Amino acid sequence: MRLHEQPHHDGSGLYVSDGAPSLGDLVTVWVRVPAAAGVTAVHLRSTPDGEPRFTATAVDPDRTGAAVAGYGAGDVWWRGELLVRNPVTNYRFLVEADGVEPYWLTAGGIVEHEIPDDMDFRVVAYDAPPAWSADAVIYQIFPDRFARAAGAKPLAELPSWALPREWDRDEVIGQGPGTSEQFFGGDLDGITERLDHLQALGVNTVYLTPVFPARSNHRYDASTFDEVDPLLGGDAALARLAEAVHARGMRLIGDITSNHCGDAHEWFTRAVSDVHAPEREMFYFDDTTGEYESWCGVKSLPKLNWASPLLRERMGAVLRRWLVHFDGWRVDVANMTGRRGAQDDTHEVAALIRRGLPGEVMLVGEHMHDPTGDLDRDGWHGTMNYLGFTRPVWAWLRGDGHLDQFFGTPPGVPRRDGRAAYATMRAFASRVSWRTLTHSWNILDSHDSARVRTVTGDAGRHLVALGLQVTLPGTPMVYAGSEFGLTGWNGENARTPMPWDRPADRDEDMLAAYQRLLRLRAAEPALRHGGLRWLHVTSDTMVYLREVEQNAILVAARRAGGEAVRLPLDARLTGVCNATDLEPDDSGTVTLPGDGPSLRVWRLGPPR
Amino acid sequence: MRLHEQPHHDGSGLYVSDGAPSLGDLVTVWVRVPAAAGVTAVHLRSTPDGEPRFTATAVDPDRTGAAVAGYGAGDVWWRGELLVRNPVTNYRFLVEADGVEPYWLTAGGIVEHEIPDDMDFRVVAYDAPPAWSADAVIYQIFPDRFARAAGAKPLAELPSWALPREWDRDEVIGQGPGTSEQFFGGDLDGITERLDHLQALGVNTVYLTPVFPARSNHRYDASTFDEVDPLLGGDAALARLAEAVHARGMRLIGDITSNHCGDAHEWFTRAVSDVHAPEREMFYFDDTTGEYESWCGVKSLPKLNWASPLLRERMGAVLRRWLVHFDGWRVDVANMTGRRGAQDDTHEVAALIRRGLPGEVMLVGEHMHDPTGDLDRDGWHGTMNYLGFTRPVWAWLRGDGHLDQFFGTPPGVPRRDGRAAYATMRAFASRVSWRTLTHSWNILDSHDSARVRTVTGDAGRHLVALGLQVTLPGTPMVYAGSEFGLTGWNGENARTPMPWDRPADRDEDMLAAYQRLLRLRAAEPALRHGGLRWLHVTSDTMVYLREVEQNAILVAARRAGGEAVRLPLDARLTGVCNATDLEPDDSGTVTLPGDGPSLRVWRLGPPR
Repeated sequence: MRLHEQPHHDGSGLYVSDGAPSLGDLVTVWVRVPAAAGVTAVHLRSTPDGEPRFTATAVDPDRTGAAVAGYGAGDVWWRGELLVRNPVTNYRFLVEADGVEPYWLTAGGIVEHEIPDDMDFRVVAYDAPPAWSADAVIYQIFPDRFARAAGAKPLAELPSWALPREWDRDEVIGQGPGTSEQFFGGDLDGITERLDHLQALGVNTVYLTPVFPARSNHRYDASTFDEVDPLLGGDAALARLAEAVHARGMRLIGDITSNHCGDAHEWFTRAVSDVHAPEREMFYFDDTTGEYESWCGVKSLPKLNWASPLLRERMGAVLRRWLVHFDGWRVDVANMTGRRGAQDDTHEVAALIRRGLPGEVMLVGEHMHDPTGDLDRDGWHGTMNYLGFTRPVWAWLRGDGHLDQFFGTPPGVPRRDGRAAYATMRAFASRVSWRTLTHSWNILDSHDSARVRTVTGDAGRHLVALGLQVTLPGTPMVYAGSEFGLTGWNGENARTPMPWDRPADRDEDMLAAYQRLLRLRAAEPALRHGGLRWLHVTSDTMVYLREVEQNAILVAARRAGGEAVRLPLDARLTGVCNATDLEPDDSGTVTLPGDGPSLRVWRLGPPR
Repeated sequence: MRLHEQPHHDGSGLYVSDGAPSLGDLVTVWVRVPAAAGVTAVHLRSTPDGEPRFTATAVDPDRTGAAVAGYGAGDVWWRGELLVRNPVTNYRFLVEADGVEPYWLTAGGIVEHEIPDDMDFRVVAYDAPPAWSADAVIYQIFPDRFARAAGAKPLAELPSWALPREWDRDEVIGQGPGTSEQFFGGDLDGITERLDHLQALGVNTVYLTPVFPARSNHRYDASTFDEVDPLLGGDAALARLAEAVHARGMRLIGDITSNHCGDAHEWFTRAVSDVHAPEREMFYFDDTTGEYESWCGVKSLPKLNWASPLLRERMGAVLRRWLVHFDGWRVDVANMTGRRGAQDDTHEVAALIRRGLPGEVMLVGEHMHDPTGDLDRDGWHGTMNYLGFTRPVWAWLRGDGHLDQFFGTPPGVPRRDGRAAYATMRAFASRVSWRTLTHSWNILDSHDSARVRTVTGDAGRHLVALGLQVTLPGTPMVYAGSEFGLTGWNGENARTPMPWDRPADRDEDMLAAYQRLLRLRAAEPALRHGGLRWLHVTSDTMVYLREVEQNAILVAARRAGGEAVRLPLDARLTGVCNATDLEPDDSGTVTLPGDGPSLRVWRLGPPR
C-alpha cells in the first residue's frame, strides 16, 4: 500500500480530541481513510490494565465528505472513543478492507502481521508540559564562545587552569591538550547584548550550557550549584540576562548535571575528605579502596548517587532555586542518571525532579542514546532527539567528506537513503507519545557534535536539513553559529567563537533562510501543532503533510535532483517557501518539481 | 541480503558462553559470518548504565575454518567480550562489510538503519529458571474432561450449580447457559491412572488447570486456596497424583489465579460482609457504593489488590504450601495482575512471587496479550507464548473454514503468509532474552482456544504446526486431546472429554506423529538447546537450523507444495523425520523436496 493511500492517525489535535487527558476521561480518536483504501471497518484496540479491548468505530458524518485541512473531500473519517484507563494508555487500530486480510494501523505505520505493543499510539495522563513550550524554538548558547560583553575587562586574571585565547584569531582546539582549558571569554552580558540577533532569527527560548563555576570552559564539572561563575559575570549577569530575555517575551533554559558534578564541587570535597561527612552518601565510594564511581571513568566527574535522600533534597533545592531566572532545565546525561549496575532509579528520579518543579517549567533530558524507554514516565517532557532526528538527517544528507564523528558509533556517519532515514525517524517516533515527540528537540548539531554544515558539506543540503528541522514535529533547537553556516568536525572543534566581527565567515544567505523558515513556522499553526502524514519517500525524496483542521502544509525535501513527484492531491498548492503555485491536473494529480537539493513548502487550498 | 548469507548470533550456548551470568561477569559472545557476507569488522555494542559502548571483536581462530555444528567450514567466527554490567544487559553488533554501509545485527535480524534498543540481544543476571525446566515438555490437563477414575462413585451428589453430563455421550456446550456448569466429572485419580499415555506420548511435565474448590467446571473462581476440590478427590488424590508423577521422573505444575479469586472465596466473603475485616484491603471496594473491582467486570471474580500486605503474605503462603506436590505454577491472567488504573505493581508482584519460591520452581505467566514488557524482570520465567507462537502459526496454517475465534481479535483468524508469520515470530522473540524465549511455552491450543485441528482443518497442516511446536525454541505444551486430533471451535467447545473409550474419535496416526516428534526432540540436544538460524522463508515455506556445537538439525516446514528449495549447505543431510538422506551437488547446494503440506527434519553431517 502506497503511503498516500494508507489510513492515517497520529496524536495531533486533528486526530485526538485531547492530548492532555486525565485518568478516566473518554478521548475521541479519528482515523482518516482515503477512499482508495476500500476500508469496511476500523476497530480501536486499547489494553486497559494490560488486557486487550476492541471497540468499534463508526464513520463520522461531520468530517466525511468535507475537505479537512484543505484537501481530501473523498476521505472517510472513522471515529471512536478511547477510555484513558492508565497513565499511559496505548492503542492502535485494526483495519478491515476489501480484498486484503485485516491489518494494523500503528504509530509506526501500517503493519500486515502481528507485533508487540511498542509501536502503539499512546495518550498520556501525567501532567502535561507547560503550554508555552509547545511553541518554543530553542537557541543553544555555549557561553564561552558566544559573545564577550563590550565593556568586559581583559582576560587577565584567569584561574590557573585556563588558557586564554583570542576571539577572532585563535583556532579552536578540537582534541588533545587544551581542549577543555582553552578560554575565549564569552560571558552572560555578551549574550544580553546580542538578543536582537536572536529575535531577528526567530527563536524564542535561550538554552545556556552550564553557568556554574567549574574548572573547564564547558563547565560540566561544576564546583558548586549555588552561584553563577564570576568569569561569566556572576549571579548579577544572569539576572540581567534573564530580565532582558523575559522583557522580550522570550524564555531562558539552564543546564544541570544530574548524573555527576566536578571533583572540585563542595559536596564532593567534603565527601572525599571525611568518610563521616553527610555528603558521603551522595556519591559511590568503595569503602575498602576509597575509590569512587565517576562518569565513564573520568575521575574529575564523580557520579551522584540518587539513592541518597540528601542528594534528592539538595538537588531539588538547586533546581527550584534558579527558577528565579530559568524557565526550564536541560538535564545532562539523563540516560545514566540514577543508573549503576543493579541500581536503576532513573524513572523514579526523573519523576521526583519533575514533581518538585512548578508545572510551567520545561524539563528536557539529554539522551545521546535511545531515549524511548525513559520517556512518557512522568519525568522528562522530552529529549534532545539525537537518535530519532539528528542521526537519520545526518545519514541522509551527509556529504562526501570524511565524517568519523557519529556520536561514538564506529566507523562514522553512515550513508542512508531516504527510505532508511524515514524508517529510523518512524522507529523512534513510534515509541513515544505524540506529546513527547513534539516536546523533544529537533537538533541538527550541538556543542557535542560536528556542525551540520560540515556534515552536509554544502549549503544546499544544509538548507534541506534546516527544512526538516523546522517542519517536522518537534521543537527546533538551533546551535548558535549554525545560522551562519559555521563548520566543525566534532563537538569541541565546532565550539567556534561567533563571527560577529568576521563577516567573511558568515553565510548571510543561510541566515536569511533560517529567518524565513522560522518565520514560516511561527506563522503556520500546522507546522507547530499539525499532524504528520508521510506521502512519498524515495532514496532522494521525502514529501509530507503537516495538517490542522483548517489547513495543511506540504513539504518536499530532496537531497538530489531526480524525477518529478506526482501526487494524487486534488488541491491547489500555494507556494510559501521556495515554491511556485501548483494546480492539480484533470486527473486530480499535482506534480512537484524534481530538482534538488531543494526544500519547498506549499499551503494547500480547497479542492478545485 | 538473503537469510542464509547473513551474519548470525543468538542467545544459545553456541553463541554465548554463559546464559546465566552474574553481575560483573565477562561473557564471551560469537558471531558466525558466512564468507559470502564480506565482513571486515564486527563491533559489539552494549549500553552499560544506559550509555552506549562499542567493543571491538576479533576473528576466533579456534572456530573459523572448522565445521561447527556439522557445516559451514568457510564461515568466519568473530568473538567479543561482553561485560554484564546490569541485571538485563542488552547488546547488538555493528557489522562493517565490503561495498555496503555498516548495518546492525539484532535479535530481530539484520537492520540497515538506526533503531531503538528493544530488539537488542540480552543476557539476564537475575536468578535463572530451574535447570529441569529447560527440557520440559508440558501436557495440559483440564481436570473435568481428562479422565474419571475407574472406581469413582456416580455423579450423584453434585453441588447445585453443576449440570451432570455423560462422558462419551453428551456434547460439550461451547457458549451460553451451562458452559461453566456442565460437569463431566474428571478427577485427579483419573489422571493418575492414565500416566502411561503421557509417558508414551513423550511429555514429562503435567500442568493442571485449577484444582481448588469453586463453583464452575474450570475452577478459576476458587472459593479457597487451602484445599483441593473434593469433587476432584481432595488433597489425598492430589498427593497420589503427585507421587505417581514424580515416581516416573515427571513434574507437576499447578495453576494459580493471582489476579482474582471467586466471589465465594473465604477471603472475599469476609471482606464483603465486614468493612472492618482484615481481608477488606485485599480487594478494591468503593467505600461509597460498596461496589468492588472484578476481572473484566465479571462480578463472580473479584480482583485482588496487591497493594495489600496481607494479600502478599497469604498468597505467598499459598504458593509455597502446595509445593509439597507442585513443581511450579502457571499464573493465570498475569498480564492484569497488580494493574489497575494508576496502579502498576505487576513487575514488583512477579518478582515478589518468584523470590518467595525456591529456585527449582517453574513460574510461567499467562499472557494472551503482548507479554514482552513483563518478562526479563526477575519475575515470570516465561509466558504462555500465544502472541509469539500460537497466533503466527494459526495465521499461517489456518484452513478455509470459518474461524472467528482469535483470542478476542476481530474479525477472527487472519490469513498470513510465511513471511508475515515469520515476521511476527521474530518480532516477539526479539523483545525477550533467549532464556525467556526458550522457557516460554509453545502452544498450538489450550483450554482457552479453539483446537489446532479445527484451525488447520486437516491433519497435514496440523502436522506442520506440531513440527514447529516441537522444533522451534520454546517449551512445547500439548493440550490433552490434541494428540488425538480432537476438534473444537472455541476454548469451551474444545474442552472435549478424552475419547479413551471412543476409538473412532482418535486419530492414531496423529498420536504416532506426536510420539515420533517428541522422541526426536528428546534425542536431539540441538532441538532442545540449540540456536535458531532461519535459512529460507517464503509464502509457503519455512526452513531453519537448530544447532549446537556438535551437530545441527535442519527443519523444512511447508504449508503447501511448490518449488524445491535450493540451499548452499555444503553438508550431507541425514533424514530423521519424514525425510530421505540428501547430498549436496558439485556446487555445494542441497535441494529440499517441494511437496506439501509437509514437515521434514534432517541431521547435518560433516561437509563432503
